[in-house]
Amino acid sequence: MGESDRVKVGIIGASGYGGVQLVRLLIDHPQVELVYIGGDSSAGKAYADLYPHLGHRVEMTVEKINLDVVGDRCDVVFLGLPNGLACEMVPTLIEKGCKVLDLSADYRFENLDTYTNWYKKERRDRDLAATAVYGLPELYRDSIREANLIGCPGCYCTASLLSVAPLLKQGLIVPETVVIDGKSGTSGGGRQAKTNLLLAEADSSLTAYGVAGHRHTPEIEQVCSDLAGHDVMVQFTPHLIPMVRGILATSYATLRDPGLVRDDLLTIYNAFYRSSPFVNVLPNGVYPQTKWAVGTNLCYIGVEVDVRTDRVIVMSAIDNLIKGQSGQAVQCLNILMGWEETLGLPQLAFYP
Amino acid sequence: MGESDRVKVGIIGASGYGGVQLVRLLIDHPQVELVYIGGDSSAGKAYADLYPHLGHRVEMTVEKINLDVVGDRCDVVFLGLPNGLACEMVPTLIEKGCKVLDLSADYRFENLDTYTNWYKKERRDRDLAATAVYGLPELYRDSIREANLIGCPGCYCTASLLSVAPLLKQGLIVPETVVIDGKSGTSGGGRQAKTNLLLAEADSSLTAYGVAGHRHTPEIEQVCSDLAGHDVMVQFTPHLIPMVRGILATSYATLRDPGLVRDDLLTIYNAFYRSSPFVNVLPNGVYPQTKWAVGTNLCYIGVEVDVRTDRVIVMSAIDNLIKGQSGQAVQCLNILMGWEETLGLPQLAFYP
Amino acid sequence: MGESDRVKVGIIGASGYGGVQLVRLLIDHPQVELVYIGGDSSAGKAYADLYPHLGHRVEMTVEKINLDVVGDRCDVVFLGLPNGLACEMVPTLIEKGCKVLDLSADYRFENLDTYTNWYKKERRDRDLAATAVYGLPELYRDSIREANLIGCPGCYCTASLLSVAPLLKQGLIVPETVVIDGKSGTSGGGRQAKTNLLLAEADSSLTAYGVAGHRHTPEIEQVCSDLAGHDVMVQFTPHLIPMVRGILATSYATLRDPGLVRDDLLTIYNAFYRSSPFVNVLPNGVYPQTKWAVGTNLCYIGVEVDVRTDRVIVMSAIDNLIKGQSGQAVQCLNILMGWEETLGLPQLAFYP
Amino acid sequence: MGESDRVKVGIIGASGYGGVQLVRLLIDHPQVELVYIGGDSSAGKAYADLYPHLGHRVEMTVEKINLDVVGDRCDVVFLGLPNGLACEMVPTLIEKGCKVLDLSADYRFENLDTYTNWYKKERRDRDLAATAVYGLPELYRDSIREANLIGCPGCYCTASLLSVAPLLKQGLIVPETVVIDGKSGTSGGGRQAKTNLLLAEADSSLTAYGVAGHRHTPEIEQVCSDLAGHDVMVQFTPHLIPMVRGILATSYATLRDPGLVRDDLLTIYNAFYRSSPFVNVLPNGVYPQTKWAVGTNLCYIGVEVDVRTDRVIVMSAIDNLIKGQSGQAVQCLNILMGWEETLGLPQLAFYP
Repeated sequence: MGESDRVKVGIIGASGYGGVQLVRLLIDHPQVELVYIGGDSSAGKAYADLYPHLGHRVEMTVEKINLDVVGDRCDVVFLGLPNGLACEMVPTLIEKGCKVLDLSADYRFENLDTYTNWYKKERRDRDLAATAVYGLPELYRDSIREANLIGCPGCYCTASLLSVAPLLKQGLIVPETVVIDGKSGTSGGGRQAKTNLLLAEADSSLTAYGVAGHRHTPEIEQVCSDLAGHDVMVQFTPHLIPMVRGILATSYATLRDPGLVRDDLLTIYNAFYRSSPFVNVLPNGVYPQTKWAVGTNLCYIGVEVDVRTDRVIVMSAIDNLIKGQSGQAVQCLNILMGWEETLGLPQLAFYP
Repeated sequence: MGESDRVKVGIIGASGYGGVQLVRLLIDHPQVELVYIGGDSSAGKAYADLYPHLGHRVEMTVEKINLDVVGDRCDVVFLGLPNGLACEMVPTLIEKGCKVLDLSADYRFENLDTYTNWYKKERRDRDLAATAVYGLPELYRDSIREANLIGCPGCYCTASLLSVAPLLKQGLIVPETVVIDGKSGTSGGGRQAKTNLLLAEADSSLTAYGVAGHRHTPEIEQVCSDLAGHDVMVQFTPHLIPMVRGILATSYATLRDPGLVRDDLLTIYNAFYRSSPFVNVLPNGVYPQTKWAVGTNLCYIGVEVDVRTDRVIVMSAIDNLIKGQSGQAVQCLNILMGWEETLGLPQLAFYP
Repeated sequence: MGESDRVKVGIIGASGYGGVQLVRLLIDHPQVELVYIGGDSSAGKAYADLYPHLGHRVEMTVEKINLDVVGDRCDVVFLGLPNGLACEMVPTLIEKGCKVLDLSADYRFENLDTYTNWYKKERRDRDLAATAVYGLPELYRDSIREANLIGCPGCYCTASLLSVAPLLKQGLIVPETVVIDGKSGTSGGGRQAKTNLLLAEADSSLTAYGVAGHRHTPEIEQVCSDLAGHDVMVQFTPHLIPMVRGILATSYATLRDPGLVRDDLLTIYNAFYRSSPFVNVLPNGVYPQTKWAVGTNLCYIGVEVDVRTDRVIVMSAIDNLIKGQSGQAVQCLNILMGWEETLGLPQLAFYP
Repeated sequence: MGESDRVKVGIIGASGYGGVQLVRLLIDHPQVELVYIGGDSSAGKAYADLYPHLGHRVEMTVEKINLDVVGDRCDVVFLGLPNGLACEMVPTLIEKGCKVLDLSADYRFENLDTYTNWYKKERRDRDLAATAVYGLPELYRDSIREANLIGCPGCYCTASLLSVAPLLKQGLIVPETVVIDGKSGTSGGGRQAKTNLLLAEADSSLTAYGVAGHRHTPEIEQVCSDLAGHDVMVQFTPHLIPMVRGILATSYATLRDPGLVRDDLLTIYNAFYRSSPFVNVLPNGVYPQTKWAVGTNLCYIGVEVDVRTDRVIVMSAIDNLIKGQSGQAVQCLNILMGWEETLGLPQLAFYP
């Protein structure tokens, strides 16, 4: 395919970790051409000043954000901005005919009151927001195919939802017993200089945070409720792990039918994810390590049943910055453009 | 106190990480004199060959294990051996008048059939084992004071039990809803050269193991049942964290009385641990970091209530090799000798 | 290119970290077909038992090493064996018409007495060894193109030599002043369960080893001497860094001409590596981070001059398992087959 | 000793990592009473808000800096401030009769022009500065004993100087050949939220910085010149290591007398440090690991000679925040008060 036939894509907000993954993925994607990088605090800087290791490949400069310019130049726009900013820009971009993939929380909620309640931001784009599709391909592939506006879920939600979706969809568990113990590398906190994310503080240590009140809880519950067919509340606790990348979600739930054994569940999981090239259900007795997924768009899932307690325990591992962020957005792009779902996405880790 | 008045102590099995902590603690303990280090594979070696950083302080040689010699020379013996070996030696040591603190699983079980079932070892010392006390001072301080033989609990059990003991003792939770998500640094696996514990494998990664079948489950359940007054089953899942030391237990349970709030529980925890100098219940909204406990015998506990789900979430952090192993044994020694409980034990971390 | 036109390649010794990188690279290489994996201790095992994360892509079984089978089935053979084993197998493989890329030290030495002196192995394949080419493409590209047998250099040598080659080749430094302070992640020690490579030992710590007597010294000196045109001795000290992958070589040398400034040297380095797609000489004042190279076949080089001391300091960063091992071998393969040098090799890291 | 007989000490600037070590050391020191903690940005906060793990032991509040109050209340003052601030406060404190231990660079330089040149700060306290003593007890113990004002050296200088002092003092090396390759954990960068010190950036990676121009160079050279008896220039290169604490200095130099062997040098080092309780010269063939020193005031030194190149290589390891900062200041305090030099200082690590 000639360079001129490629789809023109732009990124608004590319200075963070999600942004640099997107840049990295898009410059090697065979069907797109990265034509715009826009930002606020880093406008005017060479992108290689932010990420010197890319200097020999990326010669672009971060431009001031001008939506008219973006709309004219790009067919597709990715937004990697803090929560509450995308919803001010997306109406203009959509109006100008762009397809939009937003990596923030702005377009993930069906009920905008829930959004406003957790994110303290009033919304003026309710009609548009109602058209947004939740960008988790394994659950909403068909809707993504038809969408113009996609709210891509983040790392904790992706790992959590992929771990329990088959159970809820098939009605195999008691929904109110779901406990999700999430564990994330510190890159999930972004490229912001926060004291608690310093290596000196976060290395060789471990802590929970946002206990009983993390913002991802309502988002996880929205999709769980959709899968279960009725309102579901879950217990979600995130932890900060002394490593750069990777998320593990350990999910616990009580089985409705105590007769179900591990092999039954593996069969169900394999069937559920049969058409999902990035979900890898592990064989009997193998549990995922996060490092297997690092640098890829894969999700590894291990399933165990405790016959003593009638609980199922599901572990799912992803790279928080790829399948949990930028790779997922590219996967959504592939689907909505009608391309091969795996196009331009890394499918195998270097280990160790 | 003169050197000659000190209590003579020995260590059998001092080549591992638990052993070297014991050596380190005992050579600085003001009431004891370390007179014997015995081992099998390292017999005949200078202890400083195993741990060169101690060379300027420890000039002892590892001696072949000869129980007669140990019994003659020592008033108190610590055993830091793999499971299943202590029970072959302890009868002789007790007979020779030694007090014994065992760091393995051999003397932790009230029901030796449970032990044999999980550890695949038949026992011939049932009468003696029946006299052993579970060496968790915060729960069994009075019995420890009178004991000759103490089975000291390990790291996961200590962190887990201290997190839920007040809840079970006071009947505040539904016992069968207890889920304990344990997270440990890799030193818990000991100084054995296993591939999965190599830095190259375990660093920058995260995994669960022993899901639904870890040996510590029956031990945790034994004490939980004792506290609750009836048989209790819990869900316990250990995880390997990419750090050297430290354990965090995140424990979930459903409250019997949904009217209980965080302040109520903090009051209850503070009262429960009022006489326990090594348990530090954190104020409202503060959650423990494992690093706060590293290098000390402390246990930091944070308590949270989710009023939406009626669950309590308790986080407890310890140093797996001190409060979770060697320091706990020294704490037991202090109690059974009638000394200050904190004697010779580090009480404050260097941070970060 | 059809599957049937692909070059048939095999790997002997694929259970280690170098081996699994090779497997990972070769199954995605567009011009080769991996048809054989052979090993000794793991013969008969599914390769996915060794590396479960590859289970969905690699269904091969490790076969017993039978050189007749290998020779019949493979056009090209990679050897990833401990030092001293390749030289027993290569004569047969060459005789059977295979091209051979050896990752051990066996075919890196021009003077086999030096090899025998350091590796304690007598050699019976002197004629064949004399035909071997040193597989560092940036220095020996033309010879590699014509070779049948390539001794690929390892991680320390690659990082060290690329850092000082332009200086020695151009006669810019006093050779006997070269001090190379090498720093490597622990995966360089291989997938062997050694106590000192446990996470519990090696994490949060740092040490030198092999000081004044490391085996890579004579290998570095051989190439330095070749570049300088006369015998050169260098000071090389390796250090173990608490990370999985990556090597940094910090090289010091006294300039012959104290008038040379940084810009001069950058010009010289850029010219020297003009045709080397995997060497990236960084701009003025930018020093390499090892993480920039991790997961790629790149070498990043930073150059500094101290005008006070008349020394040049060069820092070079590579991924020890790719450019320092498996990727280098694939790069050599590409060259000797007449393919694009970068074919099938990762060229850009995911950061952070 | 009664609480009332204790020496009253204060800390100005206790919010950083050096400060919290000082607080930790001083509250357990048997001869002092910590009566004042002063700060600027954190004035008015409970100290336990900055470091919650100390909450059960430290109930002090950070006070606004008022030198009159400090002078009235304290016999001894430690200053843990950014460079350039101490020199504005110390004249007043000295005038009020306090003994002062400064942890910044302000009082480390004999030649204040050198200070001003590197730190961009004009000085108005030249007479006072001329009375300051360089607080490295192993080299200046006698002067410290008589001092009122001590400029305590930091981590890189301490590790570097202890590694080469015996060589320079005895004239064993060619001074201009000294190359010091320094490697530090990231806590050396302080508790400041800088992007490059985030775990996400600094973990699993390695880089040099300040090459050919680091501020510690002139400080190291000042003491080296003092030891050698003439002006000496050294090559010093710091590196950022992915760990929290610890520094290793690897020092290279050419021996004047190529006949010297390792045993000779070990004898010389042992003699040189005979009266230094915190320096531990390791036996033949043992090289220091930084972790051996972590949490202690120790310096471990290993010495090697390369008979091929006539170079000596010395490795020294310290805890950058204790022997490299706060512990060193307490060691100086002990000396100037006439107490046992080791009082209140940790002397043995917990390993691993």
